[in-house]
Amino acid sequence: MQSFTLIGILAGSCTTLAFLPQAVKAWRSRSTRDLSLSMFLIFVTGVLLWLTYGLMIGDLPIILANSMTLLLAGLILLCKLIYR
Amino acid sequence: MQSFTLIGILAGSCTTLAFLPQAVKAWRSRSTRDLSLSMFLIFVTGVLLWLTYGLMIGDLPIILANSMTLLLAGLILLCKLIYR
Repeated sequence: MQSFTLIGILAGSCTTLAFLPQAVKAWRSRSTRDLSLSMFLIFVTGVLLWLTYGLMIGDLPIILANSMTLLLAGLILLCKLIYR
Repeated sequence: MQSFTLIGILAGSCTTLAFLPQAVKAWRSRSTRDLSLSMFLIFVTGVLLWLTYGLMIGDLPIILANSMTLLLAGLILLCKLIYR
């Protein structure tokens, strides 16, 4: 594997997995006052578009990474909508 | 321009610009208790890796989008570190 491919995989893992601790924090604390609703609305829309893009060009890494991100960012958005 | 290219550009714009309202909110409210420090540490690391990846393969859209995201997510991380 070439070094830039490895860096790309590491990059994608970080920007996807980063949402896990935020989802856990929002879920456990039931406190989301400091989270921006606009951020998560726009972000989830963007991830849905990335997923559409990945499906259209048939790119498995884009599909997998964005499915995972959609799940985590969607959960944070849900917490924001429920707990305020 | 092909429709999937347009969707890709829209997707990238959303996942980049999403951080703007969160940065503004954190900056103005000086309150970041509900933000996960781990999320922004891992996320900023990931964006730095994406930028490195973009520079290595010479991909201008990856370089531009991630420079902008680095600026915004970095500002949120700074707010989190300063205001707690």
